[in-house]
Amino acid sequence: MLVRLAEIEVDPENLERYLTLLREEIEASVANEPGVLALQAMALRDRPGCIRLLEVYADAGAYAAHLLSPHFLAYKAGAEGLVRSLRLTEVDPVLLRAQDGFGSAGGDRDEPG
Amino acid sequence: MLVRLAEIEVDPENLERYLTLLREEIEASVANEPGVLALQAMALRDRPGCIRLLEVYADAGAYAAHLLSPHFLAYKAGAEGLVRSLRLTEVDPVLLRAQDGFGSAGGDRDEPG
Repeated sequence: MLVRLAEIEVDPENLERYLTLLREEIEASVANEPGVLALQAMALRDRPGCIRLLEVYADAGAYAAHLLSPHFLAYKAGAEGLVRSLRLTEVDPVLLRAQDGFGSAGGDRDEPG
Repeated sequence: MLVRLAEIEVDPENLERYLTLLREEIEASVANEPGVLALQAMALRDRPGCIRLLEVYADAGAYAAHLLSPHFLAYKAGAEGLVRSLRLTEVDPVLLRAQDGFGSAGGDRDEPG
């Protein structure tokens, strides 16, 4: 398993455009790539332009394939110029647990608070 | 949905003991509390005493009930003295997606790299 925590800072005036791109990328990746185990994006409440993205891949091969996927390449191209900074932190899973159905496309989305 | 990102710093000499407590707490919470949607703990690779915990609750009531659960209270009592600092950051979900079966008790655990 390969797990990363990305810290992404987006210019406020570009935030809605960036979030649309990010959501499209997440939906397409989890729907089409079984090796993308989870992509979980959130925004800091007191600094909404600060995005945190937890990325979980089955292994390094799944991650390498993801980087070449058309939806990731489209995201990268679109996000260029919108993202002020990107920091990737390698993490080791301690324990990842969730209820059945967590993160499914039919579940909750965009529900702040 | 209520989502938080906790940053926990643990003294290195207490790390194994703390991780045991944390794993027990996560397993019990997700197994026994349907309103605890996900608890995902990871350690920074270059600073293993720095833990990040993504917490997802169904709503504020589920979180309040969690704080009174016997397994959470046992964790809190045990972790006291082991944790050097704790910072809780409120976040709003942008999009949380995962494959079916992600985070299930029969899945992967403790697999760095």
